[in-house]
Amino acid sequence: MTTNFAYVKNDFYPKDQACISIEERGFKFGDGVFETIRVYSSIPYQWDLHLARLKEGIDALKINADLSGLHALCRQLIQKNAVENGLLRLSLSRGIGSDGYLPVGTAAYESTLVIETLPLPNAPQEPVDLWISGYQKISAKALPVQVKLMQGMNSILARMEAAEHNCFDALMLGDRAQICECSSSNIFWYRDNTLFTPSHMSGIMAGTTREAIIRLFPKVKEGLFLLKELHLADEVFLTNAAYQIIPVRSLSPMKLTWDSFAISSKVQKLLEQDIHTYAAKKKAA
Amino acid sequence: MTTNFAYVKNDFYPKDQACISIEERGFKFGDGVFETIRVYSSIPYQWDLHLARLKEGIDALKINADLSGLHALCRQLIQKNAVENGLLRLSLSRGIGSDGYLPVGTAAYESTLVIETLPLPNAPQEPVDLWISGYQKISAKALPVQVKLMQGMNSILARMEAAEHNCFDALMLGDRAQICECSSSNIFWYRDNTLFTPSHMSGIMAGTTREAIIRLFPKVKEGLFLLKELHLADEVFLTNAAYQIIPVRSLSPMKLTWDSFAISSKVQKLLEQDIHTYAAKKKAA
Repeated sequence: MTTNFAYVKNDFYPKDQACISIEERGFKFGDGVFETIRVYSSIPYQWDLHLARLKEGIDALKINADLSGLHALCRQLIQKNAVENGLLRLSLSRGIGSDGYLPVGTAAYESTLVIETLPLPNAPQEPVDLWISGYQKISAKALPVQVKLMQGMNSILARMEAAEHNCFDALMLGDRAQICECSSSNIFWYRDNTLFTPSHMSGIMAGTTREAIIRLFPKVKEGLFLLKELHLADEVFLTNAAYQIIPVRSLSPMKLTWDSFAISSKVQKLLEQDIHTYAAKKKAA
Repeated sequence: MTTNFAYVKNDFYPKDQACISIEERGFKFGDGVFETIRVYSSIPYQWDLHLARLKEGIDALKINADLSGLHALCRQLIQKNAVENGLLRLSLSRGIGSDGYLPVGTAAYESTLVIETLPLPNAPQEPVDLWISGYQKISAKALPVQVKLMQGMNSILARMEAAEHNCFDALMLGDRAQICECSSSNIFWYRDNTLFTPSHMSGIMAGTTREAIIRLFPKVKEGLFLLKELHLADEVFLTNAAYQIIPVRSLSPMKLTWDSFAISSKVQKLLEQDIHTYAAKKKAA
């Protein structure tokens, strides 16, 4: 068995020895951002979208970080860990130095980068059940929710709640009862030859697989939607960089059910094709 | 210079070598709770209140932790680091094991405890200026905001915003525009022989110094208050376990100002007396 490496701050370490100081603001306060990127044929899919979101997060949080060498480091780790198909996970923590919540000392200019590779998760073998979360999605008025913050408690609580109800994931609503997303995936539904999905104005995470679907599917309508829209849907599915497309068969406690998965399957094929094409192009370049 | 120790998981380490795995959920997702406790005369002040809040957090997050030996460990660290006057900081991270946001593996039953001691922060030498934050306080509908979650981004962004406006801290309002608290302190104001402070229903952190003031001051009224209440206030001050009482002299951008600090000073004296009495009683016990 070969050693699995992780990159921490400025060097590669065997992952089981990779650690960070207890004073890291990422640990003390969840003060940082992360990205989870699908790797196919050793190429990180939609790298530019992930990098753009990471930069948006860094700007929103005013974290100091130089991302110019990031792609090379990621490629190096993918090679070291011989990842053909898998996930790349980057975390950027603000660094060390705290006067209460206020960043001081080195944290003002030196953030901490962590890169690791992970196996693909076991995707559900069947369409999944969803639970409407009792936790409201954190408002975009309180946090820059469109980026991946190193603070997932809202999602964790919703996901645990769903698991307690024997559901795969939780559907979270926003502060105007609008449909937002699941704990770590965006949601789409299908009706009248059209895919529908909550808009950025709904207070969603700007999912990269969501972006790919909007680019690939002929007709997608984004908007602010209430739960009643799902009563009219012929099909529902989730999107996420690790799982790609997850068809949905029920939503509880409302007891909505769906038994058509043709569009999910079609979208999954479109996405797979795009991932192949993307990797082939990058390799040729 | 003596070595400063920290406790991590199950042993004491020199603090500059104390580290945690990059797979800790506290680092990946801010998945945990913490407490900051005032130490006076080597005694952690209001230990029972902090322990109760820690327990409430563990219950809300469904973290598995045995706190029975916690007090002894804290006392041991205070002794090792020869802390007479200072702060004790405990973090309890859910542990290692993640299927996306879902805790799996050891994280389901083995959390990670970190204890450190810190010097008292430099309290402001003069009454402070506050800024009304552009970030809404995270709603109690989204997170158990009454406990100290290891995810402070909402507070961090507000505190940084205040600093950019040359203010000491930011006053945060809730989703009904109600007064909540500052980034890491509760707020009180005085009028008609009465102290006023936002109630738990306002979506506040359940501050332990706030609790002490309510216990010590003759007349305190808790409620859901809008900003206009501060126009009528004769005095305003903040409470926090590290700083104790911080008198406020202005609130911007509204340009409210206060130049009376007699009640702040009186409350500070009541609190100091209580801290002395508490430590003396515990030592005698």
